[in-house]
Amino acid sequence: MKVGVIMNGVTGRMGTNQHLVRSLLAIRRQGGIPIPGGEPIWPEPILVGRSEAKLRALAGEHDLPLWSTDLDACLGDSRFPVYFDAQATSVRVPAVQAAIEAGKHVYCEKPIASDLGSALDLVRQAQAVGVKHGVVQDKIFLPGLAKLRRLRDAGFFGRILALRGEFGYWVFEGDWQVAQRPAWNYRAEDGGGIVLDMFCHWNYVLAHLVAPVTAVSATAVTHIPERVDEAGKRYRATADDAAFATFELEGGAVAQLNSSWATRVFRSDLLTLQIDGTEGSAVAGLRECWVQHRTTTPRAVWNPDLPREIDYQRAGWQEVPDNQVFENAFKVQWKLFLRHVACNGSFPWTLLEGARGVQLAELGLRSSRERRWLAVPELEV
Amino acid sequence: MKVGVIMNGVTGRMGTNQHLVRSLLAIRRQGGIPIPGGEPIWPEPILVGRSEAKLRALAGEHDLPLWSTDLDACLGDSRFPVYFDAQATSVRVPAVQAAIEAGKHVYCEKPIASDLGSALDLVRQAQAVGVKHGVVQDKIFLPGLAKLRRLRDAGFFGRILALRGEFGYWVFEGDWQVAQRPAWNYRAEDGGGIVLDMFCHWNYVLAHLVAPVTAVSATAVTHIPERVDEAGKRYRATADDAAFATFELEGGAVAQLNSSWATRVFRSDLLTLQIDGTEGSAVAGLRECWVQHRTTTPRAVWNPDLPREIDYQRAGWQEVPDNQVFENAFKVQWKLFLRHVACNGSFPWTLLEGARGVQLAELGLRSSRERRWLAVPELEV
Amino acid sequence: MKVGVIMNGVTGRMGTNQHLVRSLLAIRRQGGIPIPGGEPIWPEPILVGRSEAKLRALAGEHDLPLWSTDLDACLGDSRFPVYFDAQATSVRVPAVQAAIEAGKHVYCEKPIASDLGSALDLVRQAQAVGVKHGVVQDKIFLPGLAKLRRLRDAGFFGRILALRGEFGYWVFEGDWQVAQRPAWNYRAEDGGGIVLDMFCHWNYVLAHLVAPVTAVSATAVTHIPERVDEAGKRYRATADDAAFATFELEGGAVAQLNSSWATRVFRSDLLTLQIDGTEGSAVAGLRECWVQHRTTTPRAVWNPDLPREIDYQRAGWQEVPDNQVFENAFKVQWKLFLRHVACNGSFPWTLLEGARGVQLAELGLRSSRERRWLAVPELEV
Amino acid sequence: MKVGVIMNGVTGRMGTNQHLVRSLLAIRRQGGIPIPGGEPIWPEPILVGRSEAKLRALAGEHDLPLWSTDLDACLGDSRFPVYFDAQATSVRVPAVQAAIEAGKHVYCEKPIASDLGSALDLVRQAQAVGVKHGVVQDKIFLPGLAKLRRLRDAGFFGRILALRGEFGYWVFEGDWQVAQRPAWNYRAEDGGGIVLDMFCHWNYVLAHLVAPVTAVSATAVTHIPERVDEAGKRYRATADDAAFATFELEGGAVAQLNSSWATRVFRSDLLTLQIDGTEGSAVAGLRECWVQHRTTTPRAVWNPDLPREIDYQRAGWQEVPDNQVFENAFKVQWKLFLRHVACNGSFPWTLLEGARGVQLAELGLRSSRERRWLAVPELEV
Repeated sequence: MKVGVIMNGVTGRMGTNQHLVRSLLAIRRQGGIPIPGGEPIWPEPILVGRSEAKLRALAGEHDLPLWSTDLDACLGDSRFPVYFDAQATSVRVPAVQAAIEAGKHVYCEKPIASDLGSALDLVRQAQAVGVKHGVVQDKIFLPGLAKLRRLRDAGFFGRILALRGEFGYWVFEGDWQVAQRPAWNYRAEDGGGIVLDMFCHWNYVLAHLVAPVTAVSATAVTHIPERVDEAGKRYRATADDAAFATFELEGGAVAQLNSSWATRVFRSDLLTLQIDGTEGSAVAGLRECWVQHRTTTPRAVWNPDLPREIDYQRAGWQEVPDNQVFENAFKVQWKLFLRHVACNGSFPWTLLEGARGVQLAELGLRSSRERRWLAVPELEV
Repeated sequence: MKVGVIMNGVTGRMGTNQHLVRSLLAIRRQGGIPIPGGEPIWPEPILVGRSEAKLRALAGEHDLPLWSTDLDACLGDSRFPVYFDAQATSVRVPAVQAAIEAGKHVYCEKPIASDLGSALDLVRQAQAVGVKHGVVQDKIFLPGLAKLRRLRDAGFFGRILALRGEFGYWVFEGDWQVAQRPAWNYRAEDGGGIVLDMFCHWNYVLAHLVAPVTAVSATAVTHIPERVDEAGKRYRATADDAAFATFELEGGAVAQLNSSWATRVFRSDLLTLQIDGTEGSAVAGLRECWVQHRTTTPRAVWNPDLPREIDYQRAGWQEVPDNQVFENAFKVQWKLFLRHVACNGSFPWTLLEGARGVQLAELGLRSSRERRWLAVPELEV
Repeated sequence: MKVGVIMNGVTGRMGTNQHLVRSLLAIRRQGGIPIPGGEPIWPEPILVGRSEAKLRALAGEHDLPLWSTDLDACLGDSRFPVYFDAQATSVRVPAVQAAIEAGKHVYCEKPIASDLGSALDLVRQAQAVGVKHGVVQDKIFLPGLAKLRRLRDAGFFGRILALRGEFGYWVFEGDWQVAQRPAWNYRAEDGGGIVLDMFCHWNYVLAHLVAPVTAVSATAVTHIPERVDEAGKRYRATADDAAFATFELEGGAVAQLNSSWATRVFRSDLLTLQIDGTEGSAVAGLRECWVQHRTTTPRAVWNPDLPREIDYQRAGWQEVPDNQVFENAFKVQWKLFLRHVACNGSFPWTLLEGARGVQLAELGLRSSRERRWLAVPELEV
Repeated sequence: MKVGVIMNGVTGRMGTNQHLVRSLLAIRRQGGIPIPGGEPIWPEPILVGRSEAKLRALAGEHDLPLWSTDLDACLGDSRFPVYFDAQATSVRVPAVQAAIEAGKHVYCEKPIASDLGSALDLVRQAQAVGVKHGVVQDKIFLPGLAKLRRLRDAGFFGRILALRGEFGYWVFEGDWQVAQRPAWNYRAEDGGGIVLDMFCHWNYVLAHLVAPVTAVSATAVTHIPERVDEAGKRYRATADDAAFATFELEGGAVAQLNSSWATRVFRSDLLTLQIDGTEGSAVAGLRECWVQHRTTTPRAVWNPDLPREIDYQRAGWQEVPDNQVFENAFKVQWKLFLRHVACNGSFPWTLLEGARGVQLAELGLRSSRERRWLAVPELEV
């Protein structure tokens, strides 16, 4: 069963690598998505963007017959029931709106909008028209985080007390070494900022691993006030590049998460999360996960003047086995979305979830300005 | 030159191990504290406490001739110009007051009082009488933290952006395994709580390694609401056992520090501190310290779906050599205080510093209750 | 507080090493057994046996003033309220009976008798006279088994499904290499046999680690029918030297335990026990203990024709930390018994427990003869 | 010399992997089975099953021209003198009967039937018609077990005293991790149960390695009473998932074997067997085998309170070298059966042996119900 997918913004790095090559094309290499008692779902992409040259090159590289610079024409073509958006955040909302109007099922990168109002408008419009919709929430499909969820489901933690996480790495300033991220990420006026980028993730990650966020206290700062852009031009960084945040979760657990593009990494991975529970603790990176059950917890004693007797990063910790094949996180979610579209499979990560991510980012920035905790109200659609 | 020291509360674990055996007696084993062109300072302790049996045993074990259960008599004895207090916090203030009244130079364990008002009273009294005074601030003499300070003094960090720290370990609940800390630590009514215990340290540690604290936002919680005490009796934990805090430091750096007695340790040490600066970063445990200069910073790229290519906990990091013998942290400070008393050597860690620690703890708890940032006002004495 | 102890049979290997040197004398080296708010219990042994030469030598070696070959005189001496018996099993019953008649508190090695009838007579007599009584059940104080119990108490196993154990080693036949055990162990007519020796242990070990035994099926065999004794004389082994047993435990768990003096050891220890539960499993030797929680259980797949991909003896297993100092197992129980005598501390391992051990051995041998399961009836005293 | 083989049930996991790909096709890749002074035997399979789609796919993948869904037609086709059955146990008997009636030589997976009566009927029928017949008994061709047999044949053990074995691993319950075995394995009404599955193996393994079984005492239990099936549906496990068994062998040796799908593996392999003999002992996994001769047996002494001095899993043990290439166990037996058919080579593993396996399983289950030993009577055909 062919399902046509309009892939808008596919020539960008994430669009090409994660969504086209490692998701839709990988699904085709595996023979499509198997359907019990039916023909497999076979995604048929049409590549859409503004640069004919880039589209032609990408299509050629992967032997894909279909590409276009005319989004409207694609939206009018009934062979493509699905619209996917991986454009820059600032141009996402109007394109998604047009797709919904055209009756397409829509699937979007995050953040779905740069402000909560626009995000909610998208939700309402999609609900009114009745199309199916979803937002990319790939982190929960990373092996390390999937293992944390498996531990939670197995009751490993007992009562969860706290989660703490460190995300980040050093993004070069652009002068003496080229930056690894685009300059607009550091300009508030262009939709940049680490809070907007990462709180969209923290929202669903926390809800998935522990419980939904009920309140937030954040401190957003700009550590590096001046950078050099892709063209070698010096610019003022007007957006936050680090955020120190504490979240309260339903049921009373606390989550403390630092995000920074101006930190050097002395950890096992660029993102590490630790969950402490009454019965056991776990630490996950992107792929690995280690556990320490209460029965193997060493007896730490505070004797700062004596040489350490216990290697705390080894003693009592043990790696969680894979016990399954973990597919690319983006591909896993694409499969679920396409099954949702073609066979009504369940898909909880709707645009409303996307709006919740934008909401948390907005509240985080406001908390930082007002220097106080803010509750996260239920969204009204 | 003999200096008599009244050691009150010396039969406790810290009093015996750190202050008597590894500080004063160790100083004597080294031949006293050398004075340029003079006779070494020779500390002569008299052990003071409430249990004659314990004092007699401790004195016997170390061949010390002097012990007493009569504090007043000791305070009236001119052979002992120094009074040291390692009693439980709740009984410290009146004893120190009596010592000051008797004209003794005073040196105290932290916290010097359980509330700021009493702490300031001690400061004012000591200043009025004109005795010398000091408070134990041992953490800055730990090798790992001393190396951080050495890096700062060498200009290694450039502009310091942020410090983040994790302190803590799992303190057993006391039922199926005996707890490593006394039950009163978990009862607010007995002066317990991790904020009161640790913020006294964070105050001077931050001032020493980066800059003084100007504002605090803290979330104090009680993760384990019920524990079992030394006698096997179940009790309600009324004090906080974990605190997630963010501090603003003079000059604009941010410090984010988590303290917990209900976390399992997946770190190199029970206390780890990371400082990020424009020129370089460092991570310290109690003894070791690793640095990463901007010139050896690896180029991290966010590719969560690919196996990690860089071992972030090794690549680009390098250990700072000792390059000196680090003596016991308590002994180092004792030497400085005794030189201060005997030879007017400088000693910046006065009771006023001790009062600042109590102040930060009070503000931390209030910030947690009021759910907002609080500025740290200058103390008025 | 001195407590006089008549140590009968103290010149034997266990009597000397475990009970005298590593228990009572070790207790004295530690300053006696501390009593909250009282004088420590100070055991004062009198060494009793049949060989004056051996007693004199043993007393001399340890600077002990008291020894005697006259048991009756000792039993009549009010300075010794405790009688301890480490004689050969065949002479134990009359000596213990005399001690009880003399009003002594009695403490015995196991088995307390070679048949259930005599064992129950001892119980009844002790209850009638009202003395305190106990039996050595040292295995539960071994570090490995203590850790299993700790795991059970922590709820680690979930529902316990099964325990399986292997005990044994190769006892040389005595011809080409000297045997490690006395010849009477292999003669039924002298009270020998591995069932009588080991089932006394299995009874309390199973009750302590999982649940009391409710039924037994055993196969006792004599693998090596002829051996050579201490004098170099060939003799017929009339007792069982191996037993393959299955036990049913209260609540439905199964225990399968093999005991053998004719097996070679390809295990971590001479005794290994594995407990499998719904939530996790553990394997203990005498000192170490390893756990595998369900969350770290590898996904084993039966692919016998392919090289093994998982190292099953490492993957997912982790050692349980000591987290405490484990004292000699015999000493621990001696302390408890002496506190029981002197201060009415609780002591559950009475002669009745000793009789239960003898009962299980008798039932095991009968099950082997009758080739069927036998229920373990409640003992009537 | 081509030998046509009807492979019924070949699309199942074992049929495809072990019997087709790693046996018959591997034999063809090796140039057939060499016959001294003759043309090699060249197996020519026709794939038979119920799903045309699966057969077509399997045939296509391996470039095999022949497949069919019409068993009767195949049985009527004289190009195929051999019938092989790898269907589910419940449908095996009638198919094998039809093959015998059609004059085919028959080769079957085990168990050949789910009850002894039907198994014996097959034997009688095959004998009456005069076809050749065999049953898969692959375990004895596993390298580890082949080495044990080699040791026995070399007289290494002296008199064999006992064999003990552990088989099993944890099969996930199917809720939080997918089960590794099909749900019908856990339902008695579908022919499930570990006794029926494994005792068919134990029967020939014991006969091959030591001596035939003369009596059995077994305890079969259901540890996990509820599981989740392939479709995510919860079901009641009505069949046994663990069995603790003791066997008596001809000549007096004892075999003690535990089988469990609810145990975690702290052993070198999923199946380990230890044989103890007067002259030496051996332990085998699926591939490796270690020996300890009496001359290298360490002198174990029971000193539980002292740290272990001997590493019992290393000391005195030594690995048995391969000294040959071990081919896939299934392929080895296929070669023997095809030589038996084509050249009258000997083949002891007839349907009668298959019936003995079913007999032992039946007796094992009855022993468990009746809670007593049962003798294994000679089968009357």
